[in-house]
Amino acid sequence: MPLYAYFPNPPNGEFIDRLHERLDEGIRIAYGRKLPDPDDYDVLVSGRPSDEYLNASNKIKSLVIPYAGVPTNTRALMGEYPKISVHNLHHNAAPTAEMALTLMLAAAKSVVVADRELRTGSWMSRYGESGGMLLEGRTLLLLGYGAVGRRIARSARALGMRVVAVRRGGPLSFSDLPDEIHGPEDLDLLLPRANVVLCTLPDTEETRGLIGAPELALLPKGAVLVNVGRGPVVDEEALYMALKSGRVAAAGLDVWYRYPKTEADRDSTWPCTLPFHELDNVVMSPHRGGITDLTDTLRAAHLALLLNAAASGEQMPNRVNLGRGY
Amino acid sequence: MPLYAYFPNPPNGEFIDRLHERLDEGIRIAYGRKLPDPDDYDVLVSGRPSDEYLNASNKIKSLVIPYAGVPTNTRALMGEYPKISVHNLHHNAAPTAEMALTLMLAAAKSVVVADRELRTGSWMSRYGESGGMLLEGRTLLLLGYGAVGRRIARSARALGMRVVAVRRGGPLSFSDLPDEIHGPEDLDLLLPRANVVLCTLPDTEETRGLIGAPELALLPKGAVLVNVGRGPVVDEEALYMALKSGRVAAAGLDVWYRYPKTEADRDSTWPCTLPFHELDNVVMSPHRGGITDLTDTLRAAHLALLLNAAASGEQMPNRVNLGRGY
Repeated sequence: MPLYAYFPNPPNGEFIDRLHERLDEGIRIAYGRKLPDPDDYDVLVSGRPSDEYLNASNKIKSLVIPYAGVPTNTRALMGEYPKISVHNLHHNAAPTAEMALTLMLAAAKSVVVADRELRTGSWMSRYGESGGMLLEGRTLLLLGYGAVGRRIARSARALGMRVVAVRRGGPLSFSDLPDEIHGPEDLDLLLPRANVVLCTLPDTEETRGLIGAPELALLPKGAVLVNVGRGPVVDEEALYMALKSGRVAAAGLDVWYRYPKTEADRDSTWPCTLPFHELDNVVMSPHRGGITDLTDTLRAAHLALLLNAAASGEQMPNRVNLGRGY
Repeated sequence: MPLYAYFPNPPNGEFIDRLHERLDEGIRIAYGRKLPDPDDYDVLVSGRPSDEYLNASNKIKSLVIPYAGVPTNTRALMGEYPKISVHNLHHNAAPTAEMALTLMLAAAKSVVVADRELRTGSWMSRYGESGGMLLEGRTLLLLGYGAVGRRIARSARALGMRVVAVRRGGPLSFSDLPDEIHGPEDLDLLLPRANVVLCTLPDTEETRGLIGAPELALLPKGAVLVNVGRGPVVDEEALYMALKSGRVAAAGLDVWYRYPKTEADRDSTWPCTLPFHELDNVVMSPHRGGITDLTDTLRAAHLALLLNAAASGEQMPNRVNLGRGY
């Protein structure tokens, strides 16, 4: 029997075209809110599935979340379906790593302030006391060393940085090794050496608030913090106070503490409860890590990769560990 | 006889300390506008030397410009002293390469606009039509492949970019090879393939206006231009028009067409004659490429490198070709 995948939320036409171009022959796709008839799909493709769609097919083996991450509700719900494996897409590794490097460099070099001043004819940031931080020879502490972290490490080493990674374990190929790799228990020993701390961690029970006031206090003078993982991994108040006091020299933030809930909120939602927007030493980015001009192409290509693997009888990649939450 | 170097413009005390720490034993240093007595210096250290200091010593062999580049007047003047070799410092290669990457990423990802919008509570740049440019898999056309260009190439390749370099020739080690290397005569063939054009070229008779309206018209849709070389290599009006029309999607500019002439002008000098400051798709940086928190340390270390080489009888590195101008 060929593989059959069902999308309750119909993707846009261009996405479907790109997906079909890459799917192996024989894979069947259906989409639309109305349940297909017969409802014998093997794979449900949905970020926020309901019980209805999880129960309708007698053959369902896997849920594919067609983006990165796992919504909290989906994670809780899927705990009740232990026989259905949960997978997601890692298509955003390259764009997110690029955004992390962008924010690291923009924060370290005060690009936003320099741009704003020069637009008024002022060259003062050229003649300032310290200039931007030289990254060559400095130490990057990477929190999390998955697909995104490994890409960041490669580029940071090309810049001449020393890369120290913190991760919980799991296999790692030789070509992916950073300069040093540590378990989370070493964090307090590593922070005093970190000129840049870059967080790629998901929001889980273990990571929430991992970087708070005591951790920020361990950083050396002039350190830069970048977050492209999830906002709550870094305590909001501690970060705000450290930036305001200059204890942390600069930050580049792509992930936040508050998000627009509806489409109407998108032009009027503060990303935080404290006034980060009053600070000059933060570069504020509206969670755009995974978003580029090629996002849909990459998503379609990665989704096809998963479906093609399943259709050929291989294990579907990118299985989510529901206990860990990623 | 030990080497004797004279600085007509006294450097600051910290710089002198850092220099002394790194100088080999026996090297003699003097500084101050008043000519030393006896005036038998071997090396004059000055960016804008006068005839007085070039003629005062009977033993003078070299002029060291204690920064990067060669001021136009100095280049002209030194043509009249063919027996005095001219050298400068390449200490700014790492910081300038970092600034080039910063501006490439900031322009490609519209970081300044996204920051400005999010500071008003607007997440619209997250939901825009195209998002930022994905750099992985894209082609970087590097104009100039000296110390700065080679560093940029290393980082761009780590990002998964294809690096095509244009240079005039000269030796190149195997480890420094980009994906492709071409002579300037191929420029028109390369521009249509360039998703990013990055200029590291000095301002010389040959480079001035190298990128004008016909060249910009050859770029593919969505291309990004970065200039960390010298402003006039890219024609000001052509660039302004291409950015205004969207023909060039974005630019990151660290070098300009007008500079402050005096200290009093530093807060009130437009860097250009056309209103680039009205454009959202340009990241404006006030020629900060070489400036970081470690600039003085790097300058002192590189100057010591040159003086130590001369003192030990080796050829002093970084000799300037006055004909070429760099």
